[in-house]
Amino acid sequence: MHVKLDFWRSHRLEYSVLKRTSELPQNMKRPELDYIFHPRSTAVVGTLPDSLNKFKLGNQFIRMLLEYGYKDPLYPVGEGEGDVCGIKIYQSISEIPGPVDYVISAVQSKYVLQLVEECGRKGVRVMHFFTSGFSEIEDKSGQELQEQMVGIARRYGIRVIGPNCMGIYCPESGLAFGMNFSKKPGSVGYLAQSGGQCIIGVREANRRGIDFSKVISYGNACDINECDLLEYLTDDPATHVITAYIEGTNQGPRLLKALRRAADTKPVIVFKCADTGGGSQAAVSHTSAIAGSSLTWDALLRQTGAIRVYNVQEMFDVVTVLQRCPEITGLRALVVGHGGGSCVQASDDCCRAGLTMPLLPPEFRQALWNIYKFDAGNIFKNPLDINPYWGVDKAREALTAVGSWDGVDLILLHSTPEQDPFVPREFQFKLHTDALVGWGEVASKPVVMAMNVNTAPGDDGLPEKSFQRLLDADFAAFPTVVRAATALVRAYNYYRRRRGGRRDSV
Amino acid sequence: MHVKLDFWRSHRLEYSVLKRTSELPQNMKRPELDYIFHPRSTAVVGTLPDSLNKFKLGNQFIRMLLEYGYKDPLYPVGEGEGDVCGIKIYQSISEIPGPVDYVISAVQSKYVLQLVEECGRKGVRVMHFFTSGFSEIEDKSGQELQEQMVGIARRYGIRVIGPNCMGIYCPESGLAFGMNFSKKPGSVGYLAQSGGQCIIGVREANRRGIDFSKVISYGNACDINECDLLEYLTDDPATHVITAYIEGTNQGPRLLKALRRAADTKPVIVFKCADTGGGSQAAVSHTSAIAGSSLTWDALLRQTGAIRVYNVQEMFDVVTVLQRCPEITGLRALVVGHGGGSCVQASDDCCRAGLTMPLLPPEFRQALWNIYKFDAGNIFKNPLDINPYWGVDKAREALTAVGSWDGVDLILLHSTPEQDPFVPREFQFKLHTDALVGWGEVASKPVVMAMNVNTAPGDDGLPEKSFQRLLDADFAAFPTVVRAATALVRAYNYYRRRRGGRRDSV
Repeated sequence: MHVKLDFWRSHRLEYSVLKRTSELPQNMKRPELDYIFHPRSTAVVGTLPDSLNKFKLGNQFIRMLLEYGYKDPLYPVGEGEGDVCGIKIYQSISEIPGPVDYVISAVQSKYVLQLVEECGRKGVRVMHFFTSGFSEIEDKSGQELQEQMVGIARRYGIRVIGPNCMGIYCPESGLAFGMNFSKKPGSVGYLAQSGGQCIIGVREANRRGIDFSKVISYGNACDINECDLLEYLTDDPATHVITAYIEGTNQGPRLLKALRRAADTKPVIVFKCADTGGGSQAAVSHTSAIAGSSLTWDALLRQTGAIRVYNVQEMFDVVTVLQRCPEITGLRALVVGHGGGSCVQASDDCCRAGLTMPLLPPEFRQALWNIYKFDAGNIFKNPLDINPYWGVDKAREALTAVGSWDGVDLILLHSTPEQDPFVPREFQFKLHTDALVGWGEVASKPVVMAMNVNTAPGDDGLPEKSFQRLLDADFAAFPTVVRAATALVRAYNYYRRRRGGRRDSV
Repeated sequence: MHVKLDFWRSHRLEYSVLKRTSELPQNMKRPELDYIFHPRSTAVVGTLPDSLNKFKLGNQFIRMLLEYGYKDPLYPVGEGEGDVCGIKIYQSISEIPGPVDYVISAVQSKYVLQLVEECGRKGVRVMHFFTSGFSEIEDKSGQELQEQMVGIARRYGIRVIGPNCMGIYCPESGLAFGMNFSKKPGSVGYLAQSGGQCIIGVREANRRGIDFSKVISYGNACDINECDLLEYLTDDPATHVITAYIEGTNQGPRLLKALRRAADTKPVIVFKCADTGGGSQAAVSHTSAIAGSSLTWDALLRQTGAIRVYNVQEMFDVVTVLQRCPEITGLRALVVGHGGGSCVQASDDCCRAGLTMPLLPPEFRQALWNIYKFDAGNIFKNPLDINPYWGVDKAREALTAVGSWDGVDLILLHSTPEQDPFVPREFQFKLHTDALVGWGEVASKPVVMAMNVNTAPGDDGLPEKSFQRLLDADFAAFPTVVRAATALVRAYNYYRRRRGGRRDSV
């Protein structure tokens, strides 16, 4: 068994995306936009003294930057005398003694033209506008204001993020905008037209053990847009996987080119939203995005080799396979779990998602009968229904016995806690988690795990803690078989394209 | 607003399935199999004195029956002198002093022939075999044993449930087989070929505030089968909705007829599993079911008007709409939530599921502008993006203002807690729950709610408690927009068929 375990661990290290992409040239020069993620000083405009209102939006940005360890000079700007988190408030940008690289604007839109002028004179390099009320509003004054604002910024060489967005989360440099985000730098880049999708995406990822190199909520994209960000993340050595939430673009040909180069360089996963009549109606009011037809986008994504998903959960499902499994070289799966009905459903879910399940050959079936002596209550075919109540060690022995079968490319393990009638909930979760980890350790192929925790939520935290145990043991864990199987198929298509050098549908 | 609230409540009471089906003839005679759910005495075979092993399976069945309030005489049968939960153990069925209606067998398969003989002589009417090792095992001795067992039972007029199953859960009569099931009788019948799917189905339903009239885990179906149970539940006045997990049948024509009559009488929701190559491989070893081709089943279900679903979650999603909404008369939806990206995604998810989203007419949009004065950060189109942070009362006012729009048939409310960057988790859950309940109360149309709790699990129980608040306020609540919209479309198709008297695809 220990040999198997070592085999698995070494394979994972050897082949995983994490390792592979870290082989990008070390001497590569920093890509063009890199400076926006490493401001040497930052001002937040739209603060008030904490003594007056510490929940003012600008104050919240200051608090986040301190919380996430931003180390360079930080300046609250706003009305009134006092401090924000102990830092003196300045009345204006021009009053700040040192240079200012980066400005976060949390003021109302009517003040922005004056603010950009002032920032220009100060030598500011990047402005992020949390401020909304621009091209996304129906009144055409919004669009006009946005154009004027960009005009002034361009004159001074200021790059603009937004408006109407959350800005940058970059754990490495201590930039962040949300409570309870991970403080650990990771290898996933995420660009999101929506602030909300940005935040729930980060939360979803963090909860699955995924950390970020750079996250950018870019809103109306009046200057820095999805193309700039894709190009940047393609060249960023710290980013090994690119994820994107996009509502629309007005630079179709450039986006096609950017996506193509990105997908040729590293895995690119796109959650294209505003894909229906209702969605497009929403998107134009949300980020002023022209959503484009669903067919056009489908064609565009297929041509580039980007992986298309339909929500943030699916997005980080694919990242999970890329980061936590060796290369997926085929779709033939051995499906192992416990419970007849669960096994039937898991098999249906796997086959519908695109996996195949070849029948276990007689010699291996015989090996399982030799271990269990009888087959009542078991299924020894593919799927395998192996009862952990008859001993997790025995179940490990069974999985080891089929380990040399070369008829499958991967192993999908599943469990459904709380399907046992007479066993206390706590014990079921413990046993099922022990079983998954125990089985996973003796797997001699790429392995993913689906713990169907959605069948047994509860306010005791047991599902979450059990899921965390799977992550802590370094496995690719999913909350349903459908999601695990779908992610496997998408990852396989990515690897196949990469091996074949082809740009076909994924 | 109070008028609206009353309107909604009265409509719900008037039209809901619950009310409609309770109008079944009161003088109807009890359907044929009814006695199996009301045994006047029960014996459990395969117990040991608690002092030796209180976790013996037979002992667990006794404990469950007592726990769920089974009131009639109860007899543990097994080896050794002593008691189970304070009830004296009998050495054999024949030793029991009074008559025995119902026997639960938890003995090994090698003892069953002798047991059935003995039960026959005792005058037992129904036997449930938890025991496995019959037609579901590969060795043909299993099939032979099952046939012999049924032969003896038939000779004595004993009806058999199973073998290889969990038996009956009927809260009304105190029959049950699983820990932590609801003790409250309800109006949903559930027949399940799989014990595990039976148990997770009950848990899923209970958690959604759904209770059962009768639940039957029927396993290998050697005697009482899916057709018998469908026919029974069709005629059972306590059952208003029929749900079924089916792996296969060997009585195709009879099942078609039974499903047709059932679906003409009340809503029937079928989770047909073993629908793929892998699933069929599993099913034959699980319950010896011959799964049949996916196309055949699709055709069969379409012809009957049964609603097809693909897991137990979807099954009780449909029940939720049937029980907690008035009749769904159309698919035109007003989609209301908070957060631009969430609204775009919700709109896509609704439209893909089959709902339509007509644009809000100018006069109603104007009414919303009059309330909010400006539209930055809002969407007033359909979807509506209404910010509860600007006051739940104001949001209620906004929803009331569009209440007289007759361009939609239903309202879908959604929220995504934890998408706000600077607000503590507890407060987000509270505000979002307040918003959904507050909005729902002023809705003048059938309303469903999707609280995207899967985006924000945590081990603090907040998602579960928030979801429970929606249920306690009597709303149809779902954990994702996709599931809410899909259930609405399925329920609509059911109602449309019922109105039109047509038997077409649902």
